[in-house]
Amino acid sequence: MTKTRVAIIGASGYTGVELMRILSAHPGVELTMVTSRQYAGMPVSSVFPSLRSLVELKFSDNRVAAVAAAAEVVFTALPHKAAIEVVAELYQAGKKVIDLSADYRFSDRDLYEQWYQPHTRPEVLEVSVYGLPELFRDQIVSGQVIGNPGCYPTSVILPLAPMLKAGLVAPASPVVVDAKSGTSGAGRGLSPGSLYCEVNESFKPYKAGRHRHQPEMVEQLGRAVGQRPNLLFVPHLLPVNRGILSSIYLTLERPVEGREIEKLLADSYAGEPFVRLLPDGELPALSAVRGSNFCDIGFVVGGEGRQLVLFAAIDNLVKGAAGQAVQNLNLICGQPETCGLLTGPLAP
Amino acid sequence: MTKTRVAIIGASGYTGVELMRILSAHPGVELTMVTSRQYAGMPVSSVFPSLRSLVELKFSDNRVAAVAAAAEVVFTALPHKAAIEVVAELYQAGKKVIDLSADYRFSDRDLYEQWYQPHTRPEVLEVSVYGLPELFRDQIVSGQVIGNPGCYPTSVILPLAPMLKAGLVAPASPVVVDAKSGTSGAGRGLSPGSLYCEVNESFKPYKAGRHRHQPEMVEQLGRAVGQRPNLLFVPHLLPVNRGILSSIYLTLERPVEGREIEKLLADSYAGEPFVRLLPDGELPALSAVRGSNFCDIGFVVGGEGRQLVLFAAIDNLVKGAAGQAVQNLNLICGQPETCGLLTGPLAP
Amino acid sequence: MTKTRVAIIGASGYTGVELMRILSAHPGVELTMVTSRQYAGMPVSSVFPSLRSLVELKFSDNRVAAVAAAAEVVFTALPHKAAIEVVAELYQAGKKVIDLSADYRFSDRDLYEQWYQPHTRPEVLEVSVYGLPELFRDQIVSGQVIGNPGCYPTSVILPLAPMLKAGLVAPASPVVVDAKSGTSGAGRGLSPGSLYCEVNESFKPYKAGRHRHQPEMVEQLGRAVGQRPNLLFVPHLLPVNRGILSSIYLTLERPVEGREIEKLLADSYAGEPFVRLLPDGELPALSAVRGSNFCDIGFVVGGEGRQLVLFAAIDNLVKGAAGQAVQNLNLICGQPETCGLLTGPLAP
Amino acid sequence: MTKTRVAIIGASGYTGVELMRILSAHPGVELTMVTSRQYAGMPVSSVFPSLRSLVELKFSDNRVAAVAAAAEVVFTALPHKAAIEVVAELYQAGKKVIDLSADYRFSDRDLYEQWYQPHTRPEVLEVSVYGLPELFRDQIVSGQVIGNPGCYPTSVILPLAPMLKAGLVAPASPVVVDAKSGTSGAGRGLSPGSLYCEVNESFKPYKAGRHRHQPEMVEQLGRAVGQRPNLLFVPHLLPVNRGILSSIYLTLERPVEGREIEKLLADSYAGEPFVRLLPDGELPALSAVRGSNFCDIGFVVGGEGRQLVLFAAIDNLVKGAAGQAVQNLNLICGQPETCGLLTGPLAP
Repeated sequence: MTKTRVAIIGASGYTGVELMRILSAHPGVELTMVTSRQYAGMPVSSVFPSLRSLVELKFSDNRVAAVAAAAEVVFTALPHKAAIEVVAELYQAGKKVIDLSADYRFSDRDLYEQWYQPHTRPEVLEVSVYGLPELFRDQIVSGQVIGNPGCYPTSVILPLAPMLKAGLVAPASPVVVDAKSGTSGAGRGLSPGSLYCEVNESFKPYKAGRHRHQPEMVEQLGRAVGQRPNLLFVPHLLPVNRGILSSIYLTLERPVEGREIEKLLADSYAGEPFVRLLPDGELPALSAVRGSNFCDIGFVVGGEGRQLVLFAAIDNLVKGAAGQAVQNLNLICGQPETCGLLTGPLAP
Repeated sequence: MTKTRVAIIGASGYTGVELMRILSAHPGVELTMVTSRQYAGMPVSSVFPSLRSLVELKFSDNRVAAVAAAAEVVFTALPHKAAIEVVAELYQAGKKVIDLSADYRFSDRDLYEQWYQPHTRPEVLEVSVYGLPELFRDQIVSGQVIGNPGCYPTSVILPLAPMLKAGLVAPASPVVVDAKSGTSGAGRGLSPGSLYCEVNESFKPYKAGRHRHQPEMVEQLGRAVGQRPNLLFVPHLLPVNRGILSSIYLTLERPVEGREIEKLLADSYAGEPFVRLLPDGELPALSAVRGSNFCDIGFVVGGEGRQLVLFAAIDNLVKGAAGQAVQNLNLICGQPETCGLLTGPLAP
Repeated sequence: MTKTRVAIIGASGYTGVELMRILSAHPGVELTMVTSRQYAGMPVSSVFPSLRSLVELKFSDNRVAAVAAAAEVVFTALPHKAAIEVVAELYQAGKKVIDLSADYRFSDRDLYEQWYQPHTRPEVLEVSVYGLPELFRDQIVSGQVIGNPGCYPTSVILPLAPMLKAGLVAPASPVVVDAKSGTSGAGRGLSPGSLYCEVNESFKPYKAGRHRHQPEMVEQLGRAVGQRPNLLFVPHLLPVNRGILSSIYLTLERPVEGREIEKLLADSYAGEPFVRLLPDGELPALSAVRGSNFCDIGFVVGGEGRQLVLFAAIDNLVKGAAGQAVQNLNLICGQPETCGLLTGPLAP
Repeated sequence: MTKTRVAIIGASGYTGVELMRILSAHPGVELTMVTSRQYAGMPVSSVFPSLRSLVELKFSDNRVAAVAAAAEVVFTALPHKAAIEVVAELYQAGKKVIDLSADYRFSDRDLYEQWYQPHTRPEVLEVSVYGLPELFRDQIVSGQVIGNPGCYPTSVILPLAPMLKAGLVAPASPVVVDAKSGTSGAGRGLSPGSLYCEVNESFKPYKAGRHRHQPEMVEQLGRAVGQRPNLLFVPHLLPVNRGILSSIYLTLERPVEGREIEKLLADSYAGEPFVRLLPDGELPALSAVRGSNFCDIGFVVGGEGRQLVLFAAIDNLVKGAAGQAVQNLNLICGQPETCGLLTGPLAP
């Protein structure tokens, strides 16, 4: 089999390292170049000893032309804003690009600019596709620039979209999303709040009601469903390395029973290899998805059938970032969608 | 100063150990007897090495008469149901009792029996007092049997009561309580779900909408406020030893601004030594209360002033159990309320 | 490709679950039966949600005949003593067996009986092979009963054997092994010492100088090298799920330089796919091997060249148990030795 | 009672925060000033929310004159090198100083300069006293500048000194110290190795044989005993916030029995309030000392009486830093030595 030649720009963050980990065991891919301004010239294995003997590359500098020459498909794992131009240049060079920043996730440029900054490449934004395969697979397959979803949005859109589509959610009541993320979601950057002793044995909310993933999930749910939900999003920081668990509280238009929700989810995700539905009464846990590309969804019905709580668990670095990016790679390269992504979750 | 002679029945659970820890440094108390069926005859320090040189007792068997002879005030830290008779006997022997089980927390016997089991000592239940000093101090001071509050209810009633009292909460909308507890809340009993490898690096909801602390908080909020709230309670298990953080979502009757909430909380808890109010925009964290009797309360206002999110953090073993019990001891014995309870939180 | 039909007896401990995880992604294997007395009749995925959609079996009861009918190769993951008869029956039924208990790890029956109990099947013990491929690959390839090494011994024998073989170690001085293991090494059994709150934020030595892995490593080092070392083994319990790091202190016969040790290790493990040697001055870490079959080895030279400290890191459930067992499976079935075992370590 | 007026210079590291925590509950002390260049002008409680309502100060800038005016006793918790001049100025201003850096821990100036840098105030170094009360109490009581011991040295000197004093240790064999420290020992500084995701679920050795605490423990053991031991020190980084456990391996001059070691330790530390000796066969654990000023010591005898393994557990921030500093404060101010230091360890 001819292997697809692949490169990663900005490979020294947690997302980049996870991409290297997954790609090093992917049978259909050859990883030809990884870049990092900070570590340019150093062997990957001396910076990330976990990859010793698996990734035999040195970090290159972040030069787009060299990357374009080395690869057919490029993952960009840069901070948002930094990705805008790099992705656009690769696009113009005819490369397929899977961007893991927020810069190509929005269809609504105004909304992006309201929460981030001016978007200097609106013409590329326009052709980009939101890379959530379970909802937008058809567009992804023929896409050239994929905006890989945020970690929180992935964990919220998947359980919530079927309920909104089915018209179950009372529009007057806000959808409350109480989400909890492992600390790798904060990245490898140095900040006091990411120190071991600050996170360990603690737990706290942050950016309540003002996290940038809120407009992303609202917009994409709106696109999938036809109407933007009224959503209140409160993230919390968990003392674990990996994982997001989102608890989603809905007031319903009419009373339901558990089996109706079960059937709705089953119909929505029939045949999806990475969505695992739990029977009524079983609730997901981070330990069951750690290191995997699965999204586990469970629920309970309360309030005499008028309240629904959805729970979704993902590994924020896999289904929430690098794994979903590889899923998108498989789709745009015509590989089996699960290729390189079916190793079992690490439990315990 | 004459010291109050105190005993603990059922001292070998986490709550009992925490009581011993706090009481060993309490200047107004002499700990005369601690009982444990499982460890009867063994030195406390050989079972709990942390207490070596601090508690020089052996565990006694659980005989009520011996305990009654040894102490004026007795803490009962037995599982619910087991406490009913023991507390009643101590009551009849004229002892003051602070019960840390659920058996004397309900004023409404029917509600208790609906969620637990038949209450065989309703006459003692009737005279018992709910031991949340910030709301019921007057009754506690003259009480003989104190039902020490549950950990989750403490973390929910304190932030929520002022909002309900002020009539701010829209009665049609449910109050959503998304609570997260450290693992010591599950006790020292042996169950697969409490094993290190099951809890560590994981996180999950449990007993969503059907946890027994829900009726307790609903009843006591109703007593404090005059009307039982419509409340949906979903607890989650955190990979930390200690701490509860409750995130409480309210839809308001009318729009508010942050300073109104700030003032309402400040007025409600002026002079309270163990309630610490955070300024608008600061959110509590478990690390700031670990090992202490504080309840830290913060909030954010959203939805154009129509949505309020309250956050409360406590140490489940201290303000959520043993510390609050000692606070009650101080009140019923005429000691300063903060005696033995003002050591600083362990951070990091 | 015809897949090898494989079964696991005693599949509900951590080692069994890890075997299922690895085998579910192994292209050359069909997992046909998994047994568990405790969970017989239950779907694997309802007990171990991480395996949902990956292992579509129910647990069977532990009947050897049924297992023998279902598989060509059987992993036995029973507690020691329980394995003796089961392995022997499978052996007599002509099956290949990889035993993960201690019952077939000793060549010296007396030594086994001194530390464990009488061995009732010495004739099978006699034909069994110690399954450490890097030292005993030739015997394994043609073996029928493989005694899969203990986790601690794997982490000690690999770094230490080359030093002993080279005659570098002063025989008069004891070899000090200070080893630290993650908590999954203690298994899924219920004991107070394995509770989350007991292990988390703690650390302690246990069974100092009297752990049963000590005679195993001494015997197998003796077999590999020709002489049993004088070894003092002190294990400690780490608050992590997975991983063993062993620090090994040697007094040398003569002064050495770092590059001599580097060369000795490189020559000893040239071509070994799962042994990764760190350059002089780099030290291994558990995070670099988590979830993988690698053994990372580093060292420092001190005391003017007369003292050597070796460090080895493995994942106790993979290279220390299930992964090494699959490596042995590959060897005895003629599959590529790395098949199913090259996914990258999960870092972070 | 008149309270001693006390200040802390460099109060925003973990050691400074722990000092504030302990001092806020110390009945004989008034904390009048705390300094921090980074946070000057900010309320302590806004930087360290755990101290809200306990420490009602703002951070001051690091001006020695102002500090000298505000306090009789000053704790300096600066990085080494930075402390040299500050301590000397306070000394000249007639203040008592307890320095928590390494700058006044060495009696042997050459040794200090070999491992750190030139010491610009040798005349103050000369009058300084090593603040390990159990060994040097008499000197401390009349000291003016106290060099507060390092965390590792405290955990090594206490168990080892009696063995060396008794002449039990074979001088030809090196003393192996395999030490493990919680992450607060690395301080609050920003470095990749201190990030949550790097430390959590990992474990590793560092600075093997070249950590600066090695010469400190060698020198002070030499002073206490009359001869410097031959010691190999290998520290490791533990995924816990607090705690050091040191495992110390000795080859003995002659065979001993456990009760001889028990007696030797008991005689050496009779009456010491913070040294807790474990009976033969019981081993210490970090959980038993967390948050306390205790040093727990246990041991095992092996090798037919010729090998001794000592184990010591402390909280690195308390007995290893701030607690010991307050113990020294009590001594130099004539307060009871245990004042403010007898709260029980936080377990779990």
